[in-house]
Amino acid sequence: MAEEEGITVKKSENFSEWYSQVVQKAELADIRYNVKGFLVHQPWSVRIMKKIRDLFEEELEKKGHEPVWFPAVIPESFLKKEKEHAEFSADVFWVTEAGENFEKLEEKLALRPTSETAMYTMFSLWIRSWRDLPLKTYQSCQVWRYESVTRPFIRGREFYWIEGHDAFATEEEALEQVKEDMDTTEKIMHQKCAIPFLFFKRPEHDKFKGAVNTFAADSIMPDGKAIQLPSTHFLGQNFSKAFEIKFVDKDEKTKYVWQTCYGPAFWRIFGALIAIHGDDKGLVLPPEIAPIQVVIVPILGKDDEKVMKKAKEVERLLKENGLEVKLDERKEYTPGWKYNYWELKGVPLRIEVGPIDVKKKQVVVARRDTGEKIAVKDEKLVKSLNELLKQIQSNLIKKADKFFKENLHEAEDFETLKKILKEKGGFVRVNWCGKKECADYIKAETEGGTIRGTLFGKKEKVFGNGKCVWCKKEAKEVVYVAKSY
Amino acid sequence: MAEEEGITVKKSENFSEWYSQVVQKAELADIRYNVKGFLVHQPWSVRIMKKIRDLFEEELEKKGHEPVWFPAVIPESFLKKEKEHAEFSADVFWVTEAGENFEKLEEKLALRPTSETAMYTMFSLWIRSWRDLPLKTYQSCQVWRYESVTRPFIRGREFYWIEGHDAFATEEEALEQVKEDMDTTEKIMHQKCAIPFLFFKRPEHDKFKGAVNTFAADSIMPDGKAIQLPSTHFLGQNFSKAFEIKFVDKDEKTKYVWQTCYGPAFWRIFGALIAIHGDDKGLVLPPEIAPIQVVIVPILGKDDEKVMKKAKEVERLLKENGLEVKLDERKEYTPGWKYNYWELKGVPLRIEVGPIDVKKKQVVVARRDTGEKIAVKDEKLVKSLNELLKQIQSNLIKKADKFFKENLHEAEDFETLKKILKEKGGFVRVNWCGKKECADYIKAETEGGTIRGTLFGKKEKVFGNGKCVWCKKEAKEVVYVAKSY
Repeated sequence: MAEEEGITVKKSENFSEWYSQVVQKAELADIRYNVKGFLVHQPWSVRIMKKIRDLFEEELEKKGHEPVWFPAVIPESFLKKEKEHAEFSADVFWVTEAGENFEKLEEKLALRPTSETAMYTMFSLWIRSWRDLPLKTYQSCQVWRYESVTRPFIRGREFYWIEGHDAFATEEEALEQVKEDMDTTEKIMHQKCAIPFLFFKRPEHDKFKGAVNTFAADSIMPDGKAIQLPSTHFLGQNFSKAFEIKFVDKDEKTKYVWQTCYGPAFWRIFGALIAIHGDDKGLVLPPEIAPIQVVIVPILGKDDEKVMKKAKEVERLLKENGLEVKLDERKEYTPGWKYNYWELKGVPLRIEVGPIDVKKKQVVVARRDTGEKIAVKDEKLVKSLNELLKQIQSNLIKKADKFFKENLHEAEDFETLKKILKEKGGFVRVNWCGKKECADYIKAETEGGTIRGTLFGKKEKVFGNGKCVWCKKEAKEVVYVAKSY
Repeated sequence: MAEEEGITVKKSENFSEWYSQVVQKAELADIRYNVKGFLVHQPWSVRIMKKIRDLFEEELEKKGHEPVWFPAVIPESFLKKEKEHAEFSADVFWVTEAGENFEKLEEKLALRPTSETAMYTMFSLWIRSWRDLPLKTYQSCQVWRYESVTRPFIRGREFYWIEGHDAFATEEEALEQVKEDMDTTEKIMHQKCAIPFLFFKRPEHDKFKGAVNTFAADSIMPDGKAIQLPSTHFLGQNFSKAFEIKFVDKDEKTKYVWQTCYGPAFWRIFGALIAIHGDDKGLVLPPEIAPIQVVIVPILGKDDEKVMKKAKEVERLLKENGLEVKLDERKEYTPGWKYNYWELKGVPLRIEVGPIDVKKKQVVVARRDTGEKIAVKDEKLVKSLNELLKQIQSNLIKKADKFFKENLHEAEDFETLKKILKEKGGFVRVNWCGKKECADYIKAETEGGTIRGTLFGKKEKVFGNGKCVWCKKEAKEVVYVAKSY
């Protein structure tokens, strides 16, 4: 299944084509399955996504969430219970028939586009008393959406995520949960996946259907466009009233619960990760989520046996020390071919073991992120590799953070905003009056610049002339504008 | 969400009702989701099933399988490519519409009932040369089948499994894979889940649709009925010919691959586990798959602080030593209530810490499997608990094996067969002529006794009178008859 050929375009010159080639040539996903927008996920991407998924699961469990598995189908009537949320029924696939004679089902079943309505139907049965609260759950699953434009790991008709659904006795606790979800995003997406973000409170017109407030982590792709990554929603009592989720409180009064939901789509996070860290040789993986952290390539020649013996010893040693290691023993490929292969796959470190290394009691270590090659003495190997992996992890974070910061701009007037969005992309900090009408004009006149919202948890003061960047009337708040995926 | 009430029927008196109560009261699955045959899986069952799933995944990966994620939908045309396998289209749910106006899709999409046709479509693109073989893959996923009768964790319209799909250059390798799958079943289902089984080669009329041979692990439920657990199928070249999966061999000839598939349905294995190990107090979990191996219940009274301090120390100590431990600190429930609660959940060991235990520098340990209580000195705690967990694991295996053995019978004539199936159940070893007609008569006349097949890997000699148990003509082979789920 190995591709002989590397990436043939430069990331900086044709990002879109570069991205498609990485997905194909690093064998992440095969788009040739005969259903539009549905991908076949190959082992390498599955192994990475499982790592990211497991990190999120672990963090969520640490914070008191318990796993559940809900049906993949949702009756039409559930979807329609919450008025605003009902809009989702426009975006779904419908199961309508079953069995030998294509019998019509009594009620149409949606392939879940998200599970609020499925879960809250059960929450109303499970929650009776304050003792049942908080109820914190999550499920790792697929969801399906009838999207018109699709792109591997960015937008799909089938994608993978975790959805967290929590219910609380009080509004305060629910609002605290939003902060906890942000912390989870920081711990996994930033620290482990090395993807920086800003957390925005979305404007009213761009909320999740049925939420009181939507808070979303936006990152920036190499082409300067924003990408929405995990979002968390304060649902208030909108769903609890629609689904009758009530409890008897300590004061013996019956109350509606307060709810939040959180959606870390590790499928899309992986897409951002490919885009942000990859280079002209292929994927670049942060060591914390790499299925293989160190690949060993023996360079065979005269001293085959000694080289293989040493390569195997190194493999054993690293395994014993808890590193994810792979010895590439394939005889049908040359060392050079293997270097390219594992660079394409993004493995953080490569160890080369040749006859000279056997003699010198060393190995040569190559870093995927910088390309640097270092000779490391055998006795220092484990320590050096651990240090190098840490360095790569923090280097990738630093590099991504730097790029992110360089893409934060500011504009007082509309022409500047338009110019920045056209020439540089990224986020542009502007004053806004708060009217949707102005947001619509901005979007139309910048060819796609949308208001991503106000910074979460920070009351930013209106700056400069203090006027809305579009209508020039009194501004109410500082928001960030970006073109986006 | 805690249930106040324990199981109200005896397993030995009304197994079916007992099973339903355990599923409900141990909070394993909620059947009140409004779509027939679709379950809501609650945290406790999800945590157990994840453990079983992960054990299978680990074992499969150790044996060279790589994970893939295929679409949940399969175009109608794929399903129909292999003639026999096409029968599956009778049992599926169909996605036929999508979007706002319930637009008809160009082609109907089946919710996958199993993924042969999805995967082999891609195998034909991935496999080119002998270098690409063997190709060993697996995916953990849900499948959907339009079943008429459903029962939690036994038969459902949606269930969870792993499906392994392998392709080889030679028939011999494919046949070896069947043995490897049996070894995987032994290692996980028997050694970890403590579920004994016999591995049968199914008769021609009971094969998987499209297979050359089906090999299945059958266990016995407490009511004496057989239950089919993981099966592995030798597909020969049936699918490779239908899907054009060819490779250029070392001899430069183009050949069709040889295939196998393996389906450990951990959802159903969990059902068997509930049934086989549970008792009148609820679930009984083998320590190897228990999400919590040891629960600590503090008995508060006069010396609250000292007791809680000790309970926490014990918790920390056990965690440090790699045990899955939970300290039940809830103040709103009595120790007695907690004992019942965790017994219902099947936690293997309970530690009681009271004021006397603080004084005596000990704790009281209660075994879930035998009910035995033992005082253990603090300094011996870790060692004792590890030993006890091992003892429980092997005791559950031994008990289940014993029950299984007691349910293996033999019959030379039909009346004996009928009597055993009616009065005792289990497997009855009989001679058979090999004709489907006789199998049909046996099934009709015993009210459901089916021929499960010949023992895998053993050539059993025809015994006694050497005549078919039904037609009394010359018998060809020894087979096992059982009523089944």
